Amino acid sequence: MDLRYLEDLELDRPFACGGFSFTRDEIIDFAARFDPQPFHLDEDAAQKTYFKGLSASGIHTQAAALGCVVRRLDDIAVIAGASLDRAMFHVPVRPDRHYAVSAWWHEVRPSSRNPARGVAALKGEARQEDGAVVLEFGVTYVMARRPG
Amino acid sequence: MDLRYLEDLELDRPFACGGFSFTRDEIIDFAARFDPQPFHLDEDAAQKTYFKGLSASGIHTQAAALGCVVRRLDDIAVIAGASLDRAMFHVPVRPDRHYAVSAWWHEVRPSSRNPARGVAALKGEARQEDGAVVLEFGVTYVMARRPG
Repeated sequence: MDLRYLEDLELDRPFACGGFSFTRDEIIDFAARFDPQPFHLDEDAAQKTYFKGLSASGIHTQAAALGCVVRRLDDIAVIAGASLDRAMFHVPVRPDRHYAVSAWWHEVRPSSRNPARGVAALKGEARQEDGAVVLEFGVTYVMARRPG
Repeated sequence: MDLRYLEDLELDRPFACGGFSFTRDEIIDFAARFDPQPFHLDEDAAQKTYFKGLSASGIHTQAAALGCVVRRLDDIAVIAGASLDRAMFHVPVRPDRHYAVSAWWHEVRPSSRNPARGVAALKGEARQEDGAVVLEFGVTYVMARRPG
């Protein structure tokens, strides 16, 4: 496998990254550890909230979508993650449904201090089966530039 | 317990939210599901990277810190999460160390369209034992205004 470096990334061209789904138990288990709010923990309690039913924690959804991106981009020369950029939640994420993830590079910038490195920022989205965007997210990596 | 509404939040006063730590297995298990990169999955592979040893996924760290905030703020009238704001990673997060979390409200804004609601944005940070900030993060909630 050829490793792709900072200068190999193509801007603004979306690529599919597969997708994810959550079982009810996965939603509850994640929320119990990381986001214990009633609408993520219990179907009956969730029915009485704005969500009108169990919905996944936003950070669970963001993590699952990011996991799809990381699996798709297993050929890029990431040095480290610099930031997780703003994630916006538009529609509740429900158990036993499929969400499709796509992403695109939106900024690539060589470092002014270190000629071996640069920063690459990606945006992504997850869509439910009717095509509505449920999540927009972004991540910024420190990446290696092509050697030599 | 008295529920706290949008107008009850005090701006710019940090409050302690406890803290978190990860075992090696927790770091690897989370990364296998959500962020499968070598420096989060395997100690030997991680030694050969920028991180020079196993480090937690950024989104794992963000989720754990957010969990501390959610547990601390179990008395606020959250309707839904609107966004997870930018999370920045400054220092690798290692197994079996303690990280302390604090947070503060930095913006509260009543809705111009719905008099029963508003938006409240929180910023937070996690610090390692020597006081260095390892993570800065933020979350924006849709909240209820005080009834009547």
